[in-house]
Amino acid sequence: MGKYVKSDIEIAQETTMKPINQIGEKLGLTTDDLEHFGKYKAKLTAETLKRVEEKENGKLILVTAINPTPAGEGKSTVTVGLGDALSLLGKKSMIAMREPSLGPTMGIKGGATGGGYSQVVPMEDINLHFTGDIHAITTANNALSALIDNHIQQGNDLEIDQRRIIWKRVMDLNDRALRNVIVGLGGPAQGIPREDGFDITVASEVMAVLCLAKDLGDLKNRLGKMIIAYNRNKQPVTVADLGAEGALTLLLKEAIKPNLVQTLAHTPALIHGGPFANIAHGCNSVIATNTALKLADYVVTEAGFGADLGAEKFLHIKARNMGVSPDAVVIVATIRALKMHGGVAKENLASENTAALANGFANLKKHVETVQSFGLPYVIALNRFNGDSTDEIATFKELCEEQNMQWSLTEVWAEGGTGGLELAEKVLEQIAKTDHSFTPLYNLHDSLVEKIETIAKNVYGASGVEFTPLAKKQLADFERFGWSHLPICMAKTQYSLSDDATKLGLPSDFTITIRELKPSVGAGFIVALTGAVMTMPGLPKVPAAMQMDVDKHGQAKGLF
Amino acid sequence: MGKYVKSDIEIAQETTMKPINQIGEKLGLTTDDLEHFGKYKAKLTAETLKRVEEKENGKLILVTAINPTPAGEGKSTVTVGLGDALSLLGKKSMIAMREPSLGPTMGIKGGATGGGYSQVVPMEDINLHFTGDIHAITTANNALSALIDNHIQQGNDLEIDQRRIIWKRVMDLNDRALRNVIVGLGGPAQGIPREDGFDITVASEVMAVLCLAKDLGDLKNRLGKMIIAYNRNKQPVTVADLGAEGALTLLLKEAIKPNLVQTLAHTPALIHGGPFANIAHGCNSVIATNTALKLADYVVTEAGFGADLGAEKFLHIKARNMGVSPDAVVIVATIRALKMHGGVAKENLASENTAALANGFANLKKHVETVQSFGLPYVIALNRFNGDSTDEIATFKELCEEQNMQWSLTEVWAEGGTGGLELAEKVLEQIAKTDHSFTPLYNLHDSLVEKIETIAKNVYGASGVEFTPLAKKQLADFERFGWSHLPICMAKTQYSLSDDATKLGLPSDFTITIRELKPSVGAGFIVALTGAVMTMPGLPKVPAAMQMDVDKHGQAKGLF
Repeated sequence: MGKYVKSDIEIAQETTMKPINQIGEKLGLTTDDLEHFGKYKAKLTAETLKRVEEKENGKLILVTAINPTPAGEGKSTVTVGLGDALSLLGKKSMIAMREPSLGPTMGIKGGATGGGYSQVVPMEDINLHFTGDIHAITTANNALSALIDNHIQQGNDLEIDQRRIIWKRVMDLNDRALRNVIVGLGGPAQGIPREDGFDITVASEVMAVLCLAKDLGDLKNRLGKMIIAYNRNKQPVTVADLGAEGALTLLLKEAIKPNLVQTLAHTPALIHGGPFANIAHGCNSVIATNTALKLADYVVTEAGFGADLGAEKFLHIKARNMGVSPDAVVIVATIRALKMHGGVAKENLASENTAALANGFANLKKHVETVQSFGLPYVIALNRFNGDSTDEIATFKELCEEQNMQWSLTEVWAEGGTGGLELAEKVLEQIAKTDHSFTPLYNLHDSLVEKIETIAKNVYGASGVEFTPLAKKQLADFERFGWSHLPICMAKTQYSLSDDATKLGLPSDFTITIRELKPSVGAGFIVALTGAVMTMPGLPKVPAAMQMDVDKHGQAKGLF
Repeated sequence: MGKYVKSDIEIAQETTMKPINQIGEKLGLTTDDLEHFGKYKAKLTAETLKRVEEKENGKLILVTAINPTPAGEGKSTVTVGLGDALSLLGKKSMIAMREPSLGPTMGIKGGATGGGYSQVVPMEDINLHFTGDIHAITTANNALSALIDNHIQQGNDLEIDQRRIIWKRVMDLNDRALRNVIVGLGGPAQGIPREDGFDITVASEVMAVLCLAKDLGDLKNRLGKMIIAYNRNKQPVTVADLGAEGALTLLLKEAIKPNLVQTLAHTPALIHGGPFANIAHGCNSVIATNTALKLADYVVTEAGFGADLGAEKFLHIKARNMGVSPDAVVIVATIRALKMHGGVAKENLASENTAALANGFANLKKHVETVQSFGLPYVIALNRFNGDSTDEIATFKELCEEQNMQWSLTEVWAEGGTGGLELAEKVLEQIAKTDHSFTPLYNLHDSLVEKIETIAKNVYGASGVEFTPLAKKQLADFERFGWSHLPICMAKTQYSLSDDATKLGLPSDFTITIRELKPSVGAGFIVALTGAVMTMPGLPKVPAAMQMDVDKHGQAKGLF
């Protein structure tokens, strides 16, 4: 309090990074394994990815959290700090994280590269264009849109119903004016007029596909399966029907290679892919996680939002797809966020309030139970913020001990890996236990309705699920199209366990309403939408972009 | 004839490239001067660009052409071949070229990296995402659009007239359906409904600005000057009024650094920036050309389309901006294209026709006169195609000798630099002459009308210029806004010296109609539009994308 706190970008720019070759050496990689992007970023070559496939897997640690609040939880910060702590303990460790989208970076202050002394660097590059992966995805997505409109313009052999094109264009920006547009105006030479809209790129199915593909062949196969529209007989039309999967794969042939960077403490990190955690599964790429498991003995990775969305999807979609499940789960909570879950308004968070903390603790407890229900061991990471009082921390300790919950106070934001040593040790203890085995909550041969009900009742605590007439019709259609075997990707507000963003803590006596379903057949899941899900954010009154600048030496300013 | 002719991509993929470090060494650059993008591409660091500024300039050779025809001229091929030929003659030579846009690459077969044995490589990378420069420009352009729409949504302090927003969104694709769109639909939370449209990214003023900026400071200054709209008092609103120039500069801080690659014969090439040659000036960046002149003794560069558009703009806009003019000009022509200018249809080009050749020669003669009128020495490069007959070449020789024109038969497509040795020697002879001095055809203090008339009459051979009522009104407005001192960037069909694409050869008795003017105040020119100028191309019936693919090893297929 009162002392000068350095900003993330100041801390990052003060750090001397090691040349990326030296980071690769820690993993047994040579210069030839790396495709350099400047001195501090590299993609792993296709040959390298192939070569390491034969190696034994390391241990996988999944970092998830309570339901997020405006108070901030610091899940990425804990992910980075835990990786650094494991390194300090002499373990060969690595981090696997998502690539940030430019939209939020330019919209609302706050990046996705950790914070304080637990960051991945070069943070400016990672938060701006990085190695171009997201731009390649934007291009592939929109090339497909252009090919669809051109197909219709040139005769429409596939008899695509222009009122039933579900493939949208994308832009990696926050731009509300593009949510609903009409394209093809201006006369016969300018295309067919029709309704369209833009999502943010990270909501594109191409992003989800890239993140779930095992290799280039799998990528092409998945891209070919993506549904773009329905034809005049109401049958689905795929990318393969259009014949565009080769071109899309070509556009993504570099983007599929994971990106190697480092933490402030020089722990290697693969940052690759970043699908939305609502209409997609919200985890970094399978290729990055798989490769990290081959290169390191301990891999720390994270999933989007709280455990109800991110961890559930990580386990039911990504882990099942990889054939690898976490060896331990870390659940991040903060005193501030639990106080908000306990009913405190954001402006009153600075005041000590152990009663509210005890009240909000129920949110954490529910997520712990969820992780346990998957058969997985866990440790709670209480991520310390400057304003947390001694009494509040004591209350948190008591609450954990009452419930016999594993927990650790972490100070990785202020201290880097040193602040996460106890957490690391407790995680290693959990991994060493052998009495756990991963069990999905539903089977793939369950019906789509059964899968949705399982998630809603067991993970959210809902009393039941309602389906709108549209959703019911789609359930019947999707079964007819042969998509029933796919897992579910729930699109629900991240702020509440329920589908009502205002219900914090542990809501009870609520039902979940499924408004609409969306096939992501290429990614390999059916999206179930509850309420309105924003797939193209808007900019605030004063966008973060207004503070951004670069000095004449090319140094980024005002990025965070 | 009848023998198997290898495709450009086959030739390129058979070549063993040298590591980019070795290419840099030829120019006296060390590894520290390079920011690597894989093994065969690198950006030059900001420090390197600064350090070499003090060096003496080498000699600059500008490659231009007759009016293009569907028969193909091979200007890029000659540019690359001439650079290689100069290297073979023991000269320290370099090439400076534009970056290709993905739109045409995916639309119509045909790249922008030369052809046959005169190519720059890695051609797949250069023709796909390269080092991400164009993606950064797309992002900067569209971030500005999002900020404009958000400004209006959030209260519109600048009183922007939403009917008079001239800043358009962009996409680096051929996508006719995006030419005319309505954005902001869906209700009060989704922005203000208004007409908008997308140009192809290379038509963005951001691209022109990047290509004319001398350094990062100049870039920011120019971005700030760009006109985005008119307010309710019909006064121009700039990016600086919005306060977005810092963020846009930050987004472009890597894109401003030129990209080093090599030719098949390992001659160094800087490939950087690629503005449209109609509504922009059509040349690679000033930074690339300036840097190449510092690093090499001879720099070969090219300008878009024919000499009436590309060379005129190179000389009046880019050269004036750089303070450097070409030491010699190469004018590329082919027998086939001249036969088309002489009245032969494309399907009859295989037949010998010396009469048509003689007829079409008038087009070449006009461009030679234009180059001479700027006070510059030249050599015609007759770029040999397989079907050219001995008699046709003899006729071309006679025509040149009658007019006392400098020319050389080049076979760089089939033979690489060896096929351009004579051309290189003749160019060196012209450079050695000291009786030339560059003289622009108009002065900057001439009125906008005078500048346009000078170009139309002296370069195109028009008898006069007509202005539509809209153009007349704009001329008055632009004078009032203080933009009269800017040079003109003519947007005219590239196929004819006139503004009618069907009038090949040497049209006579025609006037040029200026339909509309467009301020590119950041780039530093006023665009004068004649007829309809396409700034967002469409896709053909069978787009080139349909042949594209990638094998499981990541090797590009069907790219060309």
